[in-house]
Amino acid sequence: MRYSQLLIPTLKETPKDAEVVSHQLMVRAGMIRKVAAGIYSYLPLGLRVIRKFEAIVREEMNTAGAQEVLLPAIIPSELWQESGRWDHYGKELLRIKDRHDKEFCYGPTHEEVITDLVKQSVKSYRDLPINLYQIQTKFRDEIRPRFGLMRGREFGMKDSYSFHASWDSLDDTYRRMQEAYHSIFERCGLNFRMVQADSGAIGGNFSAEFMVLAATGEDAIIGCDMCGYAANVEAAETVPPVTPPVIKKSLFYTTVDGVIEVVLRADRDINEIKLKKLIGEAEFTGTHFTGRPIKVVHDHMIDIVNARAEDVCAQCGTGHYEMHRGIETGHIFKLGTQYSEAMSCTFTGEDGDQSPMIMGCYGIGIGRTVAAAIEQNHDASGICWPIALAPFQVSLILTNIADQELVMTANVLYKTLQDAGVEVLLDDRNESAGIKFKDHDLIGIPYQIVIGKKWLQEKTLEVKTRRTRHMECVSLDQVSTYLAPLLS
Amino acid sequence: MRYSQLLIPTLKETPKDAEVVSHQLMVRAGMIRKVAAGIYSYLPLGLRVIRKFEAIVREEMNTAGAQEVLLPAIIPSELWQESGRWDHYGKELLRIKDRHDKEFCYGPTHEEVITDLVKQSVKSYRDLPINLYQIQTKFRDEIRPRFGLMRGREFGMKDSYSFHASWDSLDDTYRRMQEAYHSIFERCGLNFRMVQADSGAIGGNFSAEFMVLAATGEDAIIGCDMCGYAANVEAAETVPPVTPPVIKKSLFYTTVDGVIEVVLRADRDINEIKLKKLIGEAEFTGTHFTGRPIKVVHDHMIDIVNARAEDVCAQCGTGHYEMHRGIETGHIFKLGTQYSEAMSCTFTGEDGDQSPMIMGCYGIGIGRTVAAAIEQNHDASGICWPIALAPFQVSLILTNIADQELVMTANVLYKTLQDAGVEVLLDDRNESAGIKFKDHDLIGIPYQIVIGKKWLQEKTLEVKTRRTRHMECVSLDQVSTYLAPLLS
Repeated sequence: MRYSQLLIPTLKETPKDAEVVSHQLMVRAGMIRKVAAGIYSYLPLGLRVIRKFEAIVREEMNTAGAQEVLLPAIIPSELWQESGRWDHYGKELLRIKDRHDKEFCYGPTHEEVITDLVKQSVKSYRDLPINLYQIQTKFRDEIRPRFGLMRGREFGMKDSYSFHASWDSLDDTYRRMQEAYHSIFERCGLNFRMVQADSGAIGGNFSAEFMVLAATGEDAIIGCDMCGYAANVEAAETVPPVTPPVIKKSLFYTTVDGVIEVVLRADRDINEIKLKKLIGEAEFTGTHFTGRPIKVVHDHMIDIVNARAEDVCAQCGTGHYEMHRGIETGHIFKLGTQYSEAMSCTFTGEDGDQSPMIMGCYGIGIGRTVAAAIEQNHDASGICWPIALAPFQVSLILTNIADQELVMTANVLYKTLQDAGVEVLLDDRNESAGIKFKDHDLIGIPYQIVIGKKWLQEKTLEVKTRRTRHMECVSLDQVSTYLAPLLS
Repeated sequence: MRYSQLLIPTLKETPKDAEVVSHQLMVRAGMIRKVAAGIYSYLPLGLRVIRKFEAIVREEMNTAGAQEVLLPAIIPSELWQESGRWDHYGKELLRIKDRHDKEFCYGPTHEEVITDLVKQSVKSYRDLPINLYQIQTKFRDEIRPRFGLMRGREFGMKDSYSFHASWDSLDDTYRRMQEAYHSIFERCGLNFRMVQADSGAIGGNFSAEFMVLAATGEDAIIGCDMCGYAANVEAAETVPPVTPPVIKKSLFYTTVDGVIEVVLRADRDINEIKLKKLIGEAEFTGTHFTGRPIKVVHDHMIDIVNARAEDVCAQCGTGHYEMHRGIETGHIFKLGTQYSEAMSCTFTGEDGDQSPMIMGCYGIGIGRTVAAAIEQNHDASGICWPIALAPFQVSLILTNIADQELVMTANVLYKTLQDAGVEVLLDDRNESAGIKFKDHDLIGIPYQIVIGKKWLQEKTLEVKTRRTRHMECVSLDQVSTYLAPLLS
C-alpha cells in the first residue's frame, strides 16, 4: 500500500500516560488511540498486526481440530446464575440492564454460553469430544486499566472450550492445545515458556500459562537452562540440600494447634504456599518465640523455599534455574465438570447412563500478545517486528518524490514486489528523507529499501534490516532474490 | 471438512418463535442458536457464511480506497454528549455504567468515535479525503427484536465514514461507495435495487438504500423495468396524466389558511408526503366539504399520488413500474457537517482557514444480508445458497460408511477436490442416505455429489445442482472438469 493513502499518525513525543514501552510505541507508531481508560481504537497499522496474529491462531486451532464459532458479547444473567458466577464474580463483570430492565453482562469469558450451547446440541458420547473456539471482543472492568493493550478493559481474545466423555479424552485435547499454542507463539517468532500455574478464579485442577519473556513482564518465572521445565516463582519446585545448613534462621508460624518453628538457610526466602500445603493455615508470628514450638520444619528435609536463579532444576536434576520475567499471553485449563454439573450439560454414555461432560478451556490474549511481541522486539528507535506479525514485510522509502527517476524506480519495484506476493509499504509522502527514516524505524517494518542517492549515483538500492541495522546495496534485478530467503 | 467433525445440529421442526423463512432455516440448518431475545450464537456453518460475506465486503471496500480500522464497542458518554445524541437517542441505545459509575453506551453506530479519531489525527486539506471502515459487532436495544438476524439486538455491521474538504470530494466518494455496494451485492448473486430514501434518524441530506428483493421484505419498492430507477413507494415519482381523469374523487385538507380540495383519479391513492411538500402542513378532513375551498389541486397537473405497478417510469418515460418488496441491507448517506461542527472536527484549508470536515457514512448489515440471501434463495426443502456465500461449494454424500469401496472413492474424490481448491463437505456420518439427503438439501450447499448405488452399479457419481434439482451422472475422472465452470 501507499503510505500517503494510510492513516498512520506517528508521534515524536511519548504519551504521558504510557508507562511501558509497548504502549508507548503502539501509540507513537499510530497503531492505537485511547478512547477511554482501557478502551482503544485500532488504526490501520495496528489492526493489520492484530489480524495477522488472529490468522495464525485460527490456522493452528483449525489444524488442531477445533471449530470456530462466534458467541454473543452480551450474555443474559440467567446463564451466569445457573453456573453460580453471577453473585460471585466481582466488579470486573460489566453488568447491564436492557430497556425492559432485564439483566445482562458483557462477557469477560464464555463458559456459560458455550456450555448451554453444547448442552442443547450434543447428546451422545458418539458426538464427543468437541472443541469450539471463537475470536471475540471481551470486556473486563479492571479497576486500574493500564499498559495499553496489556491490561485493557475491552480486548480481543481467542477462547476455546472442549467437551469430553472421559478424562483421557480431555488429556488428549489438552495436549493438542499445548502443541497448538507452542506452534502459535513459535510462528510469531516469540521467546516464551509454558509454565505450570495455579488456575485462578475460573476454577479447575490443572493449568499452564504461556509466558512471553520480557524484562517488563508482570510475572516472575523460573526456567531450567537444560530441560525446558518452567514455573511461576511461587510454584517452582526446589531440591532441598542434602546436609543441614551451617548458617540458618528460624521463623515462627501460629496454627490452630499451636506455634510451629520453620528452620531454613539464612539466605533463602520462605514460600508460604508450599509451607501451608504442609502445615495447613498458619500465620507468621515473628523470628523469635519464647515458648516451645509444637513442631519444627527444616528446609533441608522438604521443599519450603522460593526457587531462585542458579538452583539445580528439580525436574531434571542436571540443569540450573534462570530467572525470567514474563507476560501471560495464553492459558490452558482442565476445567473438569464444574460448569457441566452446575448447568446440567450431560451426555448419554455407551452404557446408556447420563454423566456431566468433562471440560477444558484455552485462552489467548490477542492484543496482549501483540503488545508482548513489542516488549520483546524493540530498540531505542522503535519496534522491530518479527516477520510473521509485521504489518508489512518491506518498506520502500522514496527519498524525493520530486525526482522522476526515483519515482519511476520506486513504482517498478513496488509492482515487482507486490506481484511476488510481498507485502509492501511504499512511502510516497511529500516529506524529507530524515522524517521517513525515523518513521520507518518507529513502525518497525523488518526490511527497508531506500530509493535515493545511491540509485542516482550508482544504480543500487540500500536494503536495511530493521533489527540488526545491517545495510547492503543491491541492484534492482537482485532485490527479489535477496529478499526471498529473508521473508520465508 | 468432514461432517462428523462439525457441529451442525439440524432440526426437523420449525422453531415456534421463527416467523420468517430465513430465521426458520438458519435455526433448522444449525447455523445459529438464540441466547436471548435478538441475541444469537453463530455455529460453524453460520459463521462460515458470515465470514464469506465479510471477506467480499472487505475486498470491495479496500478496492474502493477505504482503510480498515476497529473502534471500540463500549463508548464513553462524553463523546455522545459532544454530538448531542446522548440526550436524544432513545431507548435503543444500551446505556451502561462502569464500576466507577461512569456512563458508557454499547455503540449502535460510530459517528462520534470516528469523528473524534479523525479530529485528533487529520489536520490539513492535504490529508483529505479519508474513508475509514470497520466490521464490528453492534447493539441496538430494539423493543421487539424479531426475524432472527434480520432485526436482532446484537448484530454485525460494516460501517464506514468518509471525511472531505469539499462537497465535490464527498460526491466522488459517495459515488465510489455506490459502486462498491453494487459490486458487493452483485458478487453475492443477490437480486437487489438501490433506492432513493429518506435519511432517517442519523441525519443528513442525501441518502440511498440497497434493498435485497424478497416477498417477505419489510419495505415496498417501486422499480422501473427498463432504466434501473427505483425508490421507496412513498418517494417514487409519477407522471401526471396529460388529460383530466373521467372518473374522479375529491379529498379535503385543512391548512392554517383554510380548506384545500384535492382532485384525483378515483382509483389512485393520495401521497401525503408529496402533497405536504406542495401545500405545507395539512390535515385530512374528509371527502365532503360544504364550504368553498381556498384552493383546488389536481393530480393531472402535479405529482401527488402514490406510484404503483404499470405506471410509466418518471425517470426514463419509457419503462413501466414494477412493485417489489425489499430488505434493507445497505444504506449510504451524505452526512455533511452535522458531526464535525458539533465536535469541532476541522481542517486547515489551502487558504489557511479552518472549516468543519464534510462527512459521508455508509453501512451494510452483515447478518441481515445473509438472512436476506436466504429469503431470496430457498425452496420447500431448505436453503439454496448463491455460490459466493455458500458455507461449502460441494457436498460429498457417502451413502453407506460401511462399504469400503464407497469410502475409498469418497476419500479420493474429497482429496482431489480439495487439492483443486474446492471447499468440500464430506458427509461421513453413520446415518442413512435419506437423512443425509434431507440435511444437505436443508443446509443448501450448491452442488451435491452422491457416492452410492450408481457407483457400485456403473461407476458413476450423481451430481445434483441444489437449486434446480438437476441431476447428472458423471465419472470420477470428469467430476472436476464438470464442476469447474459451475464454481467459477
